[in-house]
Amino acid sequence: MATIEYYFEDATPGAVLELGSRKVTEAEILAFARDFDPQPFHIDREAAAQSIFGGIIASGWHTCALTMRLMVDGFLSRAASLGSPGVDNIRWLRPVRPGDTLTVRIVVLETRASQSKADRGAVRMRTEVTNQLGELVMTMESTGLIGRRPAGLS
Amino acid sequence: MATIEYYFEDATPGAVLELGSRKVTEAEILAFARDFDPQPFHIDREAAAQSIFGGIIASGWHTCALTMRLMVDGFLSRAASLGSPGVDNIRWLRPVRPGDTLTVRIVVLETRASQSKADRGAVRMRTEVTNQLGELVMTMESTGLIGRRPAGLS
Repeated sequence: MATIEYYFEDATPGAVLELGSRKVTEAEILAFARDFDPQPFHIDREAAAQSIFGGIIASGWHTCALTMRLMVDGFLSRAASLGSPGVDNIRWLRPVRPGDTLTVRIVVLETRASQSKADRGAVRMRTEVTNQLGELVMTMESTGLIGRRPAGLS
Repeated sequence: MATIEYYFEDATPGAVLELGSRKVTEAEILAFARDFDPQPFHIDREAAAQSIFGGIIASGWHTCALTMRLMVDGFLSRAASLGSPGVDNIRWLRPVRPGDTLTVRIVVLETRASQSKADRGAVRMRTEVTNQLGELVMTMESTGLIGRRPAGLS
């Protein structure tokens, strides 16, 4: 397990976190969609080619899940993460296709110490996911609950 | 592939669609989280027991993905589905734990024929996911693009 080094106090509105990239294969897209979103344009090459998308595209939920993985690896695994109450305004702006490389960045929008629980605060973030052409494929805003720095820890 | 029998014209504000249930196993929760959300309270029994959640809980994205599967099986596979531009207001209200049974229902909120594309319309829906105790575990609002009924098809 990674060492926790990012606490609520470390979140600064305006800060930008670059969380790295991940290539998406057709096999992954098909596997995710067969489990969770078996619509023809996600799982059936022929039907997808005939569809408005012109070929296989990733489930939007797969894009969310891949984004989460980059968020965990690049940020949350080192943060005092206490989960999330929710996500707003997910926008799937462009299809994600086999072979695309997704890059995730986060902008800290706002921080708010919890009124009811002294050990944590809420960090509101905007997530931007781009493809290898620099085109935005997904944006969303989420809230992460992050533990406060324990007394005596600098 | 299922026969398409649900078109934009069939969506009526206020209509309720009951989309069935699905039990969630610990193995599934761990497998999804190892792939996409490897935070300790999703993948590590001991760490999860010590966490604020008191045990393994499902990734919120896993709950979304399982909900999508019930939406596809119970509705979208028979609808002229053309994907979705996005989702609003995902709220993870209670943890989903191993052995929980999730039930999904959808309420049609609003329908709007596309101004720019004569072949489709947008259907705004509220999704409610409850557990076996009848407690809401997740709510969200999403927009589905649904094809219009082809001329001559009754």
